[in-house]
Order: sequence, then structure tokens, then C-alpha cells
Amino acid sequence: MSSPSHFVSRHLFGPGPCNPYPEATTALTRPLLGHLDPEFIAEMDEVCAGLRTLWGTENARTLPLSTTGSGGMEAAFVNFVEPGDVVVVGVNGLFGERMCDVASRMGAEVVRVDFEWGTPVDPVKLTEAHPDPKIIAVVYAETSTGVASDIAEIGRRKGDALLLVDAVTAIAGVELKADEWGIDIGYAGTQKCLGVAPGLAPFTVSDRAWERRVEHPRSWYLDLGMLGGYAGEATGSKRTYHHTAPTGMVVSLGAAITRILDEGLDNVIARHRAAGAALQAGLEEMGLELFAAEGHRLPDLTTVKVPEGVDNAAVRSYLLEHFDIEIGAGVGAYTDSVWRIGLMGPNAQPASVPLILGALKEAIAAVR
Amino acid sequence: MSSPSHFVSRHLFGPGPCNPYPEATTALTRPLLGHLDPEFIAEMDEVCAGLRTLWGTENARTLPLSTTGSGGMEAAFVNFVEPGDVVVVGVNGLFGERMCDVASRMGAEVVRVDFEWGTPVDPVKLTEAHPDPKIIAVVYAETSTGVASDIAEIGRRKGDALLLVDAVTAIAGVELKADEWGIDIGYAGTQKCLGVAPGLAPFTVSDRAWERRVEHPRSWYLDLGMLGGYAGEATGSKRTYHHTAPTGMVVSLGAAITRILDEGLDNVIARHRAAGAALQAGLEEMGLELFAAEGHRLPDLTTVKVPEGVDNAAVRSYLLEHFDIEIGAGVGAYTDSVWRIGLMGPNAQPASVPLILGALKEAIAAVR
Repeated sequence: MSSPSHFVSRHLFGPGPCNPYPEATTALTRPLLGHLDPEFIAEMDEVCAGLRTLWGTENARTLPLSTTGSGGMEAAFVNFVEPGDVVVVGVNGLFGERMCDVASRMGAEVVRVDFEWGTPVDPVKLTEAHPDPKIIAVVYAETSTGVASDIAEIGRRKGDALLLVDAVTAIAGVELKADEWGIDIGYAGTQKCLGVAPGLAPFTVSDRAWERRVEHPRSWYLDLGMLGGYAGEATGSKRTYHHTAPTGMVVSLGAAITRILDEGLDNVIARHRAAGAALQAGLEEMGLELFAAEGHRLPDLTTVKVPEGVDNAAVRSYLLEHFDIEIGAGVGAYTDSVWRIGLMGPNAQPASVPLILGALKEAIAAVR
Repeated sequence: MSSPSHFVSRHLFGPGPCNPYPEATTALTRPLLGHLDPEFIAEMDEVCAGLRTLWGTENARTLPLSTTGSGGMEAAFVNFVEPGDVVVVGVNGLFGERMCDVASRMGAEVVRVDFEWGTPVDPVKLTEAHPDPKIIAVVYAETSTGVASDIAEIGRRKGDALLLVDAVTAIAGVELKADEWGIDIGYAGTQKCLGVAPGLAPFTVSDRAWERRVEHPRSWYLDLGMLGGYAGEATGSKRTYHHTAPTGMVVSLGAAITRILDEGLDNVIARHRAAGAALQAGLEEMGLELFAAEGHRLPDLTTVKVPEGVDNAAVRSYLLEHFDIEIGAGVGAYTDSVWRIGLMGPNAQPASVPLILGALKEAIAAVR
């Protein structure tokens, strides 16, 4: 399995992972550093600084957790929820559903506010669902439906609650302003618009949230109090050993961040916006119908309805076999009726659009 | 940070990570696969099969968890401990201590059995500490002290308890026979003798333990019931999406496993044994005193006492600056008085020995 005679090389146009930025891949071949090496610690500090820029925050406690994005979600709840705490969750897709499951395992009193899949979370309904919640939790960019919700408006209306936001399919692809929008607790993943292999969860915590954290969370591994030292000087803690950081992954993330900031974050976001707009226009020109509500569509993740009489899986298999193109199925009730097409990281480029449109057209015709 | 003008290249002779096998590093440059790609799923199945060989088990539930070794420890407890469960923990070093912390966060009634650091866990005292524990937990290879404990004897005496074993600094470096020894729950890490960058936790669960698992553990991310599908057909579950697997890391682990099995597991273990024995003999010839009790020394991690009047940190800094050699300090009460020297993975080779001995001799003379 280590040395196949040829490598399969895919166009990763699904909901993530995307193809990594080449800088992120070549960084993985650098000689590995120990997690306590001064050279690594300096790189970790730079990664944390770069993540602050990408989050739009000055939070000292901004770092890559040693887990995937879903582990980031768990860290977000386990450090701030004690049994009986009221947590309002906006649910307009799979990841909102998952938040309810994760929060309830911590013993939270979950107040679930549902919205039709494919539509955004309504800030008024969400923030008026309970008079005094500890946490209001919402997914900014719903990977299951391709919908963006209005975090800024939710932040304006959050009152005394802590605002907990899933930014997995947002960071480094769409606008994200944690401080301006009032995000108190945020987590993301590396395998979407950051253009890095999956394995780390960029995380940020406001001072306001920090003061209300659980002192002794049920998770040792994700205990942010212990991770303070690991995260470095900026947290005001002495740097101490907690666990062995995935040093190679952190260096790879650092390379991607440098590449993104060299291009310019605004330019990167504009590139994602342009690619997504071109893809969505092209799909509609083909006569296909987009799934996500107009005006709330993510550029980096497009959802499109499978035409009547076309087999979702057959098309995806055709794309994989004939073009080495991966796209995603829908989720939940939409498993068969929706495709999810991601243009993330280096894939958010003009050339991706005709490739997808042409291949999809052929695939639909072939399986009909 | 992505493109320094030259890369720092270390000899990683600390307690881990070690330098990776070159096969593991080059595998990271292979085109990234999606976590649902049939090609990746086939590779994951091979990785699970290879891990079974390395664990010495036929457990269907053997897989790499998407977390580091410390997250593996957390998974081991969170899936099997409910509040009030009695957990006996053998403590002869830092990782035994950590087990107590992790288990107590799950609400366990922890029965802690202490042994002097530098000595092994006594199987009789451990297994007689409580008449009817749900779990007996022990570290096989204590990374903080360089000591191996007798897991086979503990397994023979475990009675009805589940035997939970930390094999982080054991797997693919020293003998490990999960089934023969009666290990029910085991976790490891990739960055020790497996010779892969840190980031995954090889894990195994016996059918016996599976029947006594927590149905709805407090951790969603590490919930083995949900991971069953992710792990594949062998578990008898339908393969389903749980989280985005770190596909690049899994492929890298696969490459290292192939390399190890090609060399032959017994040969790899013999190579670790020979390198460790040569290092330990050489250190004693230099007049240094080993820390771990004779007869219980790990070959892959050697602990040695810092000579009177020599500054531990100054020697380590000298080694790093002059020779690009990393070794580890001691832990806890032994932070200043012990060095930890690892010969793991590709570093378990004859050439490492004169390099370490010569450099250490010079460093001690230089800082005295």
C-alpha cells in the first residue's frame, strides 16, 4: 500500500478535503521537529499569529488544536458547558444537529431552533428562543447545505450569551471577523479553504468566554486550561508540555497560512467568491437548480439539485472513474437529491469551473 | 515561515517524535484522497489489518483514531468508564498519573496503586488492589521513566476486569501481544517506534470489552460506537461518515507499516533491542548511571542520571546547537536529574549509538 505503481490523483471538488495548496504539501517533507524544539515553538507562535489574522481576532487564545474540525466542535462545548447550562442551537443542517448531540452529552439543556435545510438561521428567532442562555451556538457556513448565516446580526443580538460559531467551511474562504461580529468561541478545520490536509482544528476564544470557562472539563485532551501553556506566551501561561503536538501538520498549516497572506486574504476571499459565482451561474445555465436559498449561498460550497430521473451516486461514480473528480452527495433527507460541489483553497480558480461543468454534463447524459 | 532559507534538520533522539521512516514522509506527498474515496477506504482497511499484526491481535475493532496518543488515552477511558465505575491504575510515571486524571474526569472511582518511578508496576499488588474493578489500567512502556512492566502477568491475573494498556512507546519497537496477554483496550501513538509524524492513535478493542462499553459516551468525537462504521467492514458496521479522517496521515502510517512488515516485525524489534542495548552499555562505559531498574529497561527509550554538577538543560542545549541532536529532560521530580534518550523507528540503528555517545561526552565536558 505504500508504493503503488501509480498514484490515484483526484480533483477534490467535494465538501472537503480539497486539494491542498502545494506549499502545504511540500512543507510536510521538511525534516520533522520535536514539539519542544525552540524552532518549532517559534513556528507555532507564527501559526497562532497567522490564525488570528484569518479569524479576524486579537484573541490571545487562538491556536490549532490537535484534532480535526469535529474535535474542534467538541472542544468548543466541553470547555464551556456544565450540566444544566442552557445552550441555544440553530439547526439548519447536519452540523447544527451535531452541535445538539455534542452539547447534550455535556449535560446541557439544549434549546434547539430549527430552520428549513437550505435556508439560513434567522437571527431574531435564534436569539429570542430563550431569555438568558449561557451559549448561543450556530454554524456560519453549513457544509451540509451550502448556506451562510448572518453571524454579525446574531452577534449584535446575543445579549449576555457567549456566541459559539462553527467556521469550518468559512475560514480563509469567506469573510470572517470574529471580533467585529462578537464571536466568543470559534472552531474551524484545515481541510477546507485553508487548503491543508485534515488533522487540525484552528480555534479561538475571547477573554469574555475565557472567564466563563469550565474549570475542570470532562475532557483532559481538549482542556483549554492545560492547553494554555502549550499555545504559548501570548496566553500569559508558561509554556509547558501537555501532549505531543502534530508538529508536521502545524508546519504544513503554517506554510498554507503564509501562502494565503502573501496572496492577500481579501484576494483569496475574492478568488473564492469569483469561482463560486462562475460555477453557480454555469450550473443554472445548464438548467440545473441550486439548492441553497438565493442570497445566502456559500461561494466555496455549492449545492445543486439532482435532476429528476438521474441517479446521484451513478453520476458521482462516473465523475470519479472517468475524470478523477470527486463531488459530494447530499446529507440526511437530501442524500439522493442534492450534490455538493466545493471550490476551496487552490481549487477556487477559474479553471475548475469548465472542468466541473463539462464533466458533469457528460456524466448526467451518460447515466440518464 | 513556509520557506526558510534553510531547514533545521534534527536527530530526534528524545522521547518522541523520532525521525520518521522516509517511506512515511514521502507518502505525505502523494495526492491527497477524500475520506470517502474508495481508494482511501481500501488503504484504511490495509492500515487496520497492518495494525492488527503490530498489536498482535485479531480484534475487528482495530483502527487509527484521528487524534494523538494522549487522545487515544482519553478514548480508552471515555468509552468504557461510567460514573462510579472502579478503575485500578498502576502509577509508576507520568502517564500512569495522567490515566488517573483522565479516569477521574469520567467520574471513575480511581484506585491508584503507586510504584517508585524507575521501577515496574508489580502485577500482584496491582491486581490485588481491589476485589472487583471494572478496569485495570497500566502503562506498558512508561515514556517518562524508560521502564517496561509485565503486561502478560497482569493479564493472567486480571480476573473479570478489562485490561487497559498504554502501548504508546511500545508498538513496533518491543514485543506486543495484545491477544495472548489479554489486553482488552489498547492505545498507541504514531510518533514513537512506528516512525510516523505525531497525529494518530492506533487503537484496539477486544470483543469482551466491546460488550461492556458505554452506550452513549460523553465524547461524541471519540465515540467508538459511531466510529464503528468509519473503521470499516470488519467491525460488522456499515461504513458511514462520522468525521473527516486525516487521510494524508493515514496513508503515511500505511507506508510505515508496510516498511516495518517488509523488514519483518521480529527483525524491527531485534533492531530496537540491539540499538538500545548498545546505547545503554556505552553510557555505562562512560561512567554514567542508568535510571530505570535493571531487567525492566526499555530498549527504545533509555533513561540516564545526570552526573553530579552537570546542568541538564545546558547539555541538551549544547547538543541541539552543536550537533542538532534532541534528547529529552526527565519528568516531574526528575526533570533536572534524568535524561531521556530515544532510539525509535529509523533511529534504532547502529550508527545512532556512537553519534549520541560521542556528542554527549563532548557536551558534558563542555558545560561542566
